[in-house]
Amino acid sequence: MHNIFVNGERLQNTIESFADFGRTDKNGVTRLSLSDEDVKVRNYFRSCCEELGMTVKVDDMGTMYATLAGIEDKPPVVIGSHLDTVKKGGRFDGVLGVIAGLEVVRTLVDQGIKPQLPVMIMNFTNEEGARFEPSMMASGVLSGKFDKAAMLSKKDPEGTTFAEALLASGYAGEADSRIKEATAYLELHIEQGPVLEKEALAIGLVDCVVGMACYEIEVTGESDHAGTTPMGMRKDALFAATDIITALRSKLGLLDSELVYTMGRMNVLPNIHTVIPNKVIFTIEARHKDMDIVREVEAIIQALPEVLLECEVTKTKLWGRDTVWFDAGICSLVKQATESLGYSNRTIASGAGHDAQFVASFLPSAMIFVPSVNGKSHCEEELTSYEDCEKGVNVVLQTVLSLLNGD
Amino acid sequence: MHNIFVNGERLQNTIESFADFGRTDKNGVTRLSLSDEDVKVRNYFRSCCEELGMTVKVDDMGTMYATLAGIEDKPPVVIGSHLDTVKKGGRFDGVLGVIAGLEVVRTLVDQGIKPQLPVMIMNFTNEEGARFEPSMMASGVLSGKFDKAAMLSKKDPEGTTFAEALLASGYAGEADSRIKEATAYLELHIEQGPVLEKEALAIGLVDCVVGMACYEIEVTGESDHAGTTPMGMRKDALFAATDIITALRSKLGLLDSELVYTMGRMNVLPNIHTVIPNKVIFTIEARHKDMDIVREVEAIIQALPEVLLECEVTKTKLWGRDTVWFDAGICSLVKQATESLGYSNRTIASGAGHDAQFVASFLPSAMIFVPSVNGKSHCEEELTSYEDCEKGVNVVLQTVLSLLNGD
Repeated sequence: MHNIFVNGERLQNTIESFADFGRTDKNGVTRLSLSDEDVKVRNYFRSCCEELGMTVKVDDMGTMYATLAGIEDKPPVVIGSHLDTVKKGGRFDGVLGVIAGLEVVRTLVDQGIKPQLPVMIMNFTNEEGARFEPSMMASGVLSGKFDKAAMLSKKDPEGTTFAEALLASGYAGEADSRIKEATAYLELHIEQGPVLEKEALAIGLVDCVVGMACYEIEVTGESDHAGTTPMGMRKDALFAATDIITALRSKLGLLDSELVYTMGRMNVLPNIHTVIPNKVIFTIEARHKDMDIVREVEAIIQALPEVLLECEVTKTKLWGRDTVWFDAGICSLVKQATESLGYSNRTIASGAGHDAQFVASFLPSAMIFVPSVNGKSHCEEELTSYEDCEKGVNVVLQTVLSLLNGD
Repeated sequence: MHNIFVNGERLQNTIESFADFGRTDKNGVTRLSLSDEDVKVRNYFRSCCEELGMTVKVDDMGTMYATLAGIEDKPPVVIGSHLDTVKKGGRFDGVLGVIAGLEVVRTLVDQGIKPQLPVMIMNFTNEEGARFEPSMMASGVLSGKFDKAAMLSKKDPEGTTFAEALLASGYAGEADSRIKEATAYLELHIEQGPVLEKEALAIGLVDCVVGMACYEIEVTGESDHAGTTPMGMRKDALFAATDIITALRSKLGLLDSELVYTMGRMNVLPNIHTVIPNKVIFTIEARHKDMDIVREVEAIIQALPEVLLECEVTKTKLWGRDTVWFDAGICSLVKQATESLGYSNRTIASGAGHDAQFVASFLPSAMIFVPSVNGKSHCEEELTSYEDCEKGVNVVLQTVLSLLNGD
């Protein structure tokens, strides 16, 4: 272990300073991508970096790169995440990973350490997708997963395009600024789930972002009068839909204890208490790190009957993604750092998507999780104790020091 | 049998003339209560009645009473229904019962019959409740079921009160005009269900309007991230709700083959595909003519667990109504009339609500159903063949003649 630690009090103050940009009544944060609050927090982040002697660049999707020069002009060690939040989100999701970078560089500067390699902090634009869909927009373009022109034309609910918002923000930079290579990319994030807290562990060593498949099931029956249509003459789309959900739950429940599946969106039409539903549309999404299991889920969905209770059933795949495995070498360094610090830990899969999953396609990457109180995120109650935040940032610092030392 | 029949061709023309008031592109009708179209059809109906020498009065809820004087000034034989429709409704629901009255009186006048008793045609205001809730508003006030002041203050979606709309229509009449007694009240209506068509029968002899109970079930779980929350740590309100629906269907299915039950309205919150639903609210309504069975349904609903899959379950009774039995003497006359005409028929319960169910509380009443093609109503496809309409009106005529003869 390198006998250097972050400053816990300064870290806490930084978390609260950043939360001031868009803080809500209930101590959450609303900081939609490229909003006024986002522009202000970007300006603040830039000034913090410049105070440390870092150079700040911006790429053509508005992603920020703050670099502390290294002794050698080699590919940097990168600490990245995002400063945008969902509406009425929390004070930790995203921002913690950027603040981690700031605290690491502040610690290096405090200690008078001139790093062997450049140390870079990244702030990705529009990770949440809460203002402009899809999420992870800028990292998606950066990694070639999304088409830039298509993303620029995405509109927010008010009809403003991403391109317009980017230009108005003053954060429309140059494609030349895009990162092309790095020694490592590290992303510290809150877990957004209950596992670490439940197991009383401090650190999650994230080995992958799980693969998933999302389908829309549409069940079409016939709307008839609820009072005048005998049960045997009905085509009740809700009855058929509940039978399908029951069957899916029963079959998916047998696959694997780590599989998660959710019917999160469901609309019943015409949605009148005196009318038999003629249509139910619902989503089913399932996630697992083993893509064979995801494919089994898809086979179960595809095998749903085409007609049930005289209702038509159609299945449409909305999207899917393969499991992204993080770099084994970087993951191993993170594990060593965690254990050298004596922090309790476990390997964990990320069930949520993160910029790192796209970055991992061209930079050696890893993620670190810290516990979420009650597993909550994307809400004002979102909470990670300052102590856990500090542990997470210390893991980042130790990993960075190892990387700078060429460990 | 009285050897007099209605004029089928005239009846058909009358149906289409009335449908011209609010006819839609797809040959349906939109004629919301007290709308311009409703006022125009009222004016037309009034002029048709006045041409026949009838006197037209209007009561304080806008309900119209057209009376053909009888030889004796005794309680009238009444033929009633409503001229309003739902949005994009059909050409038969409601209006057929009013047109039946018109065709009966036209036939009497044609035949030079001066009736022994007055013959009255009624047009109830706002039966559908499609503009101002609740439905059967005017018959509800007339029968003392609804509070008049409360009804006058009901607003349509644009914020206009019923009182304002009534005044603007020119159909705000006098409380003195309200009907107080009658020899009989007859309402001809389309079945709005598939039974008569399926059994290839011409006439439904309606013995009752079935009783019902309607509950709202609210299931409260917890919203968590669909990707990061293991299945065992979830409180999925949709899973609990589907278990409840499955249990209800299984238990209600055992009660009685004539019981109908419907979960027509269901809302899932927050209704996002990546978030575990924290709330599902749905309605369950059940109808049966035997109130003991309705009470068994209520007991089953009340016995639902208060907690299921760690979600809270609450049940709220939204409303209920007891079965309304029609007057045995009048029903018997209708049956005799139907059989004397040689029309195929069966006794049938009305699963839908009608003005007659309120009227029955103070006037001896009965209803007659004619078949609905595919059981459809409240939609532009609503259809009853002209031949079936004619048969229905002939049953009304024969019944009226019997009543006038004191049979």
